[in-house]
Amino acid sequence: MITLHTLGTGSGKPTPERGVSCTALFRHGEVILFDCGEGTQVQLTRSTLRPGPIKLVCITHFHGDHINGLPGLLGTLQLNQRTEPLTVIGPRGLVTYIRALQKVGALGVGYRLDLIEVEEPGVVYAEPGFTITADRLKHRIVCWGYRLSEPDRPGRFDVARAQALSIPSGPLYGRLQRGEAVQLPDGREVRPEEVLGPSRRGLSVAYCLDTQPCEGTLRLAEGVDLLVHEGTYGPEERKLAHARGHSTMLDAAEMARDAGARELVITHVSPKIMRPEVYLKEVQGTFAPSAIAKDFDSFELKYVE
Amino acid sequence: MITLHTLGTGSGKPTPERGVSCTALFRHGEVILFDCGEGTQVQLTRSTLRPGPIKLVCITHFHGDHINGLPGLLGTLQLNQRTEPLTVIGPRGLVTYIRALQKVGALGVGYRLDLIEVEEPGVVYAEPGFTITADRLKHRIVCWGYRLSEPDRPGRFDVARAQALSIPSGPLYGRLQRGEAVQLPDGREVRPEEVLGPSRRGLSVAYCLDTQPCEGTLRLAEGVDLLVHEGTYGPEERKLAHARGHSTMLDAAEMARDAGARELVITHVSPKIMRPEVYLKEVQGTFAPSAIAKDFDSFELKYVE
Repeated sequence: MITLHTLGTGSGKPTPERGVSCTALFRHGEVILFDCGEGTQVQLTRSTLRPGPIKLVCITHFHGDHINGLPGLLGTLQLNQRTEPLTVIGPRGLVTYIRALQKVGALGVGYRLDLIEVEEPGVVYAEPGFTITADRLKHRIVCWGYRLSEPDRPGRFDVARAQALSIPSGPLYGRLQRGEAVQLPDGREVRPEEVLGPSRRGLSVAYCLDTQPCEGTLRLAEGVDLLVHEGTYGPEERKLAHARGHSTMLDAAEMARDAGARELVITHVSPKIMRPEVYLKEVQGTFAPSAIAKDFDSFELKYVE
Repeated sequence: MITLHTLGTGSGKPTPERGVSCTALFRHGEVILFDCGEGTQVQLTRSTLRPGPIKLVCITHFHGDHINGLPGLLGTLQLNQRTEPLTVIGPRGLVTYIRALQKVGALGVGYRLDLIEVEEPGVVYAEPGFTITADRLKHRIVCWGYRLSEPDRPGRFDVARAQALSIPSGPLYGRLQRGEAVQLPDGREVRPEEVLGPSRRGLSVAYCLDTQPCEGTLRLAEGVDLLVHEGTYGPEERKLAHARGHSTMLDAAEMARDAGARELVITHVSPKIMRPEVYLKEVQGTFAPSAIAKDFDSFELKYVE
């Protein structure tokens, strides 16, 4: 299961009502942050999440409302006596940025900081449980969207089939479930596909801000379980939005529909929009499973059987 | 009149209850900020102050809880279409820091940014209404305390004396009040000291954090109207406090007493201290006009007649 927490859903400048960009994925006891605007660490303390288990931070671009909370978060993890390494992924310049902060003394961390600068579209991080893919977005400066994808999981274990094959219950069941072939006490070999149903799709989440509608988003969001997309402006301001490298909420819905996403969460809402919910009907008319996020909303992604 | 607003009174990491270091002076329609921890711009929007009239930002040192809010504040002033220049004073490294942020694109400002790196103790900023003096504090890294001092004002105008000298009321009164000598219609010359009382002291505020008790603070706080001093720890933790380059609340009170300050505001309180008010009696036993600040407290300084 993955839970998505919108910790900062505003754009440009933080307000008491909406923090600036940060979205957290909670997955198997670990937190993955997408963007880290000013105030992220306080939003974390206000949320049900805790900063301890942060594993990875993915920064889309260097506009202040997406990065200014990073130094403070990293410093607080140090005050919290973190010892585990932390990986930060971001655009070229990330190393320069971190080193400059360290040079003047604004950032002192004792734990290992693994910095990954995205150079080209593709997989930028991989571990057995998931991969992170980056693709180019279309904004005023270099900006990367991200997709977290879990690998497919083995199919459901068919107990009746296993019993019919006279496989003794116990550890052999577990090894077959994990996809291993096993040898039975009587010498026969059983392959996992003999007792497992069709493999089951892992979950995936795409995070695409800041951007106007673009091919990179379409690729990242293809068939995704949840697309987090910016909707800085209301539908009537499409021209202005695109001129500034942003999207309207309707753009986000069209993108979710065209990419075959299962659900859409719209974030990065302009602080000038006092009542974003007035746009929801029009947005849902284009893509029904759409939500416009507020700070501290959470969205649960469940495995499809 | 000067009003002091404590916008962030915590230390180390911000919490929902206490932001990290920022204190604002409101003086003749302008705001002067001392330190700019993460979240300062949101604290400003929550306060009765507005970010528009910020004239000057004085940064004591580069620990994150004193500077991490600066990039976001500067960016928001740009979004607010600021055109007036802004002066930022801070330790050596300030220019490197700002330029690094600009280089990666994390800080884009169109208004003029005047950066002043403090090199040695003394006056670091002066204008007709006030001066800013810096002095060395004693912390783990280079750290400057600041004092804002207004010049003395001319004495009170003595109307009875003016009438006795047969000075016609009107513009001549004003010129004498401003300290100019004037010639009367009958040819006599009147010097301002003939009609003005003794000159009146301008107001002064010293801002001393982060530091353990030191000579620099003693100099900055000498006879000051209001001393803002850190009190990271409770009185029982003096040894620990000094080992870390910090002060206890009692240190702050002793410093205010020894320097002959008129009032003391204690800030930079450790987030581990849940009820700082338990220390107030002991602190006030040493220096009676002491307060332990909370976020959004304000303190009014009035001219002494």
